[in-house]
Amino acid sequence: MPDTRLDLARIRAARRVIDPVFLDSPLYRCEALERELGCRVSVKLETANPVRSFKGRGTELVVHGLVERGERAAVCASAGNLGQALAWSGRDHGLDVTVVASRAAPAAKLDRIRALGAHLELVDGDFEQARARAVHLARERGVRLVEDSLDVETCEGAATIGLELADAGPPFDAVLIALGGGALATGIGHVLKSCVPDTEVLVVQPERAPAMARSWRARRVVTTDSADTIADGVAGRFPIAEVLADLLLVADDALLVREESIIAGLRLFLTHAGLVVEPSAALGLAAILEDRARFEGRHVAVVVCGGNVDLPAYYRWLGVAS
Amino acid sequence: MPDTRLDLARIRAARRVIDPVFLDSPLYRCEALERELGCRVSVKLETANPVRSFKGRGTELVVHGLVERGERAAVCASAGNLGQALAWSGRDHGLDVTVVASRAAPAAKLDRIRALGAHLELVDGDFEQARARAVHLARERGVRLVEDSLDVETCEGAATIGLELADAGPPFDAVLIALGGGALATGIGHVLKSCVPDTEVLVVQPERAPAMARSWRARRVVTTDSADTIADGVAGRFPIAEVLADLLLVADDALLVREESIIAGLRLFLTHAGLVVEPSAALGLAAILEDRARFEGRHVAVVVCGGNVDLPAYYRWLGVAS
Repeated sequence: MPDTRLDLARIRAARRVIDPVFLDSPLYRCEALERELGCRVSVKLETANPVRSFKGRGTELVVHGLVERGERAAVCASAGNLGQALAWSGRDHGLDVTVVASRAAPAAKLDRIRALGAHLELVDGDFEQARARAVHLARERGVRLVEDSLDVETCEGAATIGLELADAGPPFDAVLIALGGGALATGIGHVLKSCVPDTEVLVVQPERAPAMARSWRARRVVTTDSADTIADGVAGRFPIAEVLADLLLVADDALLVREESIIAGLRLFLTHAGLVVEPSAALGLAAILEDRARFEGRHVAVVVCGGNVDLPAYYRWLGVAS
Repeated sequence: MPDTRLDLARIRAARRVIDPVFLDSPLYRCEALERELGCRVSVKLETANPVRSFKGRGTELVVHGLVERGERAAVCASAGNLGQALAWSGRDHGLDVTVVASRAAPAAKLDRIRALGAHLELVDGDFEQARARAVHLARERGVRLVEDSLDVETCEGAATIGLELADAGPPFDAVLIALGGGALATGIGHVLKSCVPDTEVLVVQPERAPAMARSWRARRVVTTDSADTIADGVAGRFPIAEVLADLLLVADDALLVREESIIAGLRLFLTHAGLVVEPSAALGLAAILEDRARFEGRHVAVVVCGGNVDLPAYYRWLGVAS
């Protein structure tokens, strides 16, 4: 049992708090992808729910805790998916949600945050600027700041995906997980290392937004000056020390992939699996494409973490004229 | 309890026979669609499984029965999805599967039937020609013919979707179901009329392949000379009397929709739900688009029955240049 901030009993208990619409997402072999990749591929699909990403698992836990403690409002910074999920989870509990995001975030994500009734404040710059503004806003208003990956509920919510992977039959040889702030990776990783320790936990980040992967390799926080990738969902520059400490205990390797491999992954998902996914969700396939020998003949699970994508950009990446 | 050929106890028992990968498919509110449609819309997603359609539920039952009776081989005619599912279910049980299909069926469906190890025989003409050839082949070889919608297992497998819809909380005001041979419609309809009789069961067929809907309206089998629709999965011309008799007991209305409405439905699913679906799966949205007043403010479930589509054709329908 890795000695992270996460707790397996709490993760199991989380299943009783999280709205079932987010739990037990599809997990299935996708043989049409396998011919292209040379390994067995199972898809864990986190896009078929009201917010089209895995983030609802965490925000359900977060909001449950806030409401229990009598909080009436919360602020978060978001690349788009957390904000959408927090807005969704907050709405039915009468929690006043403010989301701070970069003006450059996908319009599809920003539109949905607004439609779900959250206050949306846009900032110039990237996710880290949004994070700084959210910290400021929360202090100014005396309101709880929800911090993705730092707040253990966001990790333990994501970790319920790990339970579903671990319970799915013979252990996978490897699980490929998108690496951003680290909630998804440490969450799933903690459960896998606890329950099926022989399954390799591989976390994947874009070469052009490599801060957390480089930190894992260096075993200390490494920041970057830019995070310039189409995988907007994982484009942070300032890794959180506590999350890195957890990641060091559960990840077997941290891989970096090129933008063109992410696009190739997007194309494979559409062509062979009929799935429209956002770039962060294609990091796993990108990793296989960049090192087929490593995965040859093995059974790999890829976590399709989100499907919120602006169609015009998606068409552009795929070379399709809309 | 409608007096069809189906049986609720058998349908409940079917859940123990069907591979769990086909059961408990996602069911979720899709608010991004609602703004466009003027009613509450829940999506029942039958595409996130190894054969990307609901047909696996039925073929699991069919193959279980065949193997129990010592059969070693089976033949079916298919528009593409049944063949794929029968090939999948047959493969692990050592059942020798032959699928007869029209040469005009989507390449994606035909490729997957072959890849799953079934024998594929192509015929000129449409589904009805494939059906005639399958009957001939089965007789010639003394092999069991699997007949979609006529074989009650295909209906009762599909009916497990009905259980999941009926158990999902407050009853839906209406459920929209694609109508082809009738297995899906009579299956879901039987369960809904048994468990939540106030839920309206609406079956939808393309205007250009209207045989079963016209038969329902006339209360007798009506055949057509052609079935010329992009919704290849429901394009039959010769309704089966036994299935019509069941449909008359469970459907509240049979709607016909235009091709351009089906395409509009495809576009809505992609743009607002991030879902690539085949035309048959867009019949429900097409029905809402053609009669918004009928659905205004109501809570409607649409069964997204399949996602096997040839991308070049899909792009063409959507006016996208690949």
